[in-house]
Amino acid sequence: MRIAVLGAGAMGALFGGYLSRENEVTMVDISRSLVEKISRDGVVICEPDRSAGCYYPAAVSSTSGMAPVDLIIVFVKAMFTRSALEKNKNLIGPGTYLMTLQNGSGHEEILLEFADGQHVIIGTTQHNSAVAEPGIICHGGNGPTHIGCLNGEASELNMIADAFTRCGLETDYCDNVARLIWKKMFTNVSASVLTAVLQVPLGYIAANESAWAMCETLVQEAVAVANGDGMNFDAEEEVEEVRHVCENSPDGITSIAADLKNGRRSEVDSISGSVVKASRRNGVPAPGHEFIVHMVHAIEGKSDT
Amino acid sequence: MRIAVLGAGAMGALFGGYLSRENEVTMVDISRSLVEKISRDGVVICEPDRSAGCYYPAAVSSTSGMAPVDLIIVFVKAMFTRSALEKNKNLIGPGTYLMTLQNGSGHEEILLEFADGQHVIIGTTQHNSAVAEPGIICHGGNGPTHIGCLNGEASELNMIADAFTRCGLETDYCDNVARLIWKKMFTNVSASVLTAVLQVPLGYIAANESAWAMCETLVQEAVAVANGDGMNFDAEEEVEEVRHVCENSPDGITSIAADLKNGRRSEVDSISGSVVKASRRNGVPAPGHEFIVHMVHAIEGKSDT
Repeated sequence: MRIAVLGAGAMGALFGGYLSRENEVTMVDISRSLVEKISRDGVVICEPDRSAGCYYPAAVSSTSGMAPVDLIIVFVKAMFTRSALEKNKNLIGPGTYLMTLQNGSGHEEILLEFADGQHVIIGTTQHNSAVAEPGIICHGGNGPTHIGCLNGEASELNMIADAFTRCGLETDYCDNVARLIWKKMFTNVSASVLTAVLQVPLGYIAANESAWAMCETLVQEAVAVANGDGMNFDAEEEVEEVRHVCENSPDGITSIAADLKNGRRSEVDSISGSVVKASRRNGVPAPGHEFIVHMVHAIEGKSDT
Repeated sequence: MRIAVLGAGAMGALFGGYLSRENEVTMVDISRSLVEKISRDGVVICEPDRSAGCYYPAAVSSTSGMAPVDLIIVFVKAMFTRSALEKNKNLIGPGTYLMTLQNGSGHEEILLEFADGQHVIIGTTQHNSAVAEPGIICHGGNGPTHIGCLNGEASELNMIADAFTRCGLETDYCDNVARLIWKKMFTNVSASVLTAVLQVPLGYIAANESAWAMCETLVQEAVAVANGDGMNFDAEEEVEEVRHVCENSPDGITSIAADLKNGRRSEVDSISGSVVKASRRNGVPAPGHEFIVHMVHAIEGKSDT
């Protein structure tokens, strides 16, 4: 397959590097220095077992003149999805699939501005990754990737899933991917966002009684909103899952916490903000999420002054 | 009058110092070094006009052996009210009035453990004061003090109010002091607590759109809870008043923000927590206040680790 990966950050470099084993991959990033680094030295992936591999996808900062590809994977930060697709829309032909595995939900709304429902792939991945230096990433953890289509043929998606799996990214087709996206969200919109506001590692959220009370409220509200969309989650079960995530990675620093610490804009609008959006759509109240979105933006605003 | 002031912090020293002009005042504080300093050098009050005065109330760290007084004013931090009264209960006779002008609300519940409703005085003051050094305070601003009784005779309270006024603390009797306490709370439970969580000056709350959205929500919830107690406040009016407070003191650092910054326990339970308590009592929801109480405690908890 001819694949373009938009965004050569931690997750983009991981997927682009792995997929380049058997596909013609082009990494697209606006940072010229990063593109030069990858073109020269490849993508270095340090694995959890302390081994490392080097991969050589192509890397460009402009795709002008390039022909449409078979698949575009969007791994830019949520707020740059639209501009990244706009800038590289020459890569999108009538048969091009657009895929998002970004954190949070609602990304498909932007992808649908560039392709029809048969060609938009949404999904979740349990891989995680962090940038060590430009072009060098630490692959923090493995896990399955699930993909689904807004409105498409399972057979085509199975082909894509198989291609990913052959490159070391275990992937399957899932016919209720919206449910998986919600499920993954529960941790992001509760424990993760609280680590950002409080500037603490994940373990603190389960260990501190007051932090945990907020976390529980956020999970319960999010489950209620999801169930308002007919998802039928069990709140207690999801609360327990979030507690396990916190307890299993007590020293874990989330990317949203790092964003706030470093004075960067966070992706809160596509994480907690997507719960607020769904809540307004289906009428199930989510006051905790409204509050936390404002709180994160108010903290971001301190860096502007 | 024979008056004991419990707590020789910023507000205690201000009231104790002023009242010693015409009354027999004893400052009571657990800090022996502060008591020695005041006994030796008096209380120095630096006024807003840059003049300064020195006052000589008595100061002790133990009142054991002292006879009951006419009036006890409680100016310790909210969480020490009970232990301070317990430790000095020999000062409380059948005719002793107990007065609280502490921030927040609900303090009377503790005072009522030590005196009957006829002898508990609650109120608000617009004076503010900060400790410059032990025994030396900066009187930041003037304003009326309003006092009322849970269940008492206006004539007695008018006498006390007059005694305060003669000493430079303009005070009046108010027959609906519960309403004044709520009114003062609106700023404390919205803008002030947000300055603590965000670690910003008051001006930021009105200037940043997201901070202001939270502030507005907190005022509206608190007004709804107060109105559930029959107070009949206008939410828009109170929101505007809080905005004025923020805009008029843009560089103002609140005491609760200073507490969190310095890793101290804050008084959030008797401020935002009293809205939560009233909300549970009268059934008017206050999810924002529940959230912010947890948030403040979760921040406090970081200092314990």
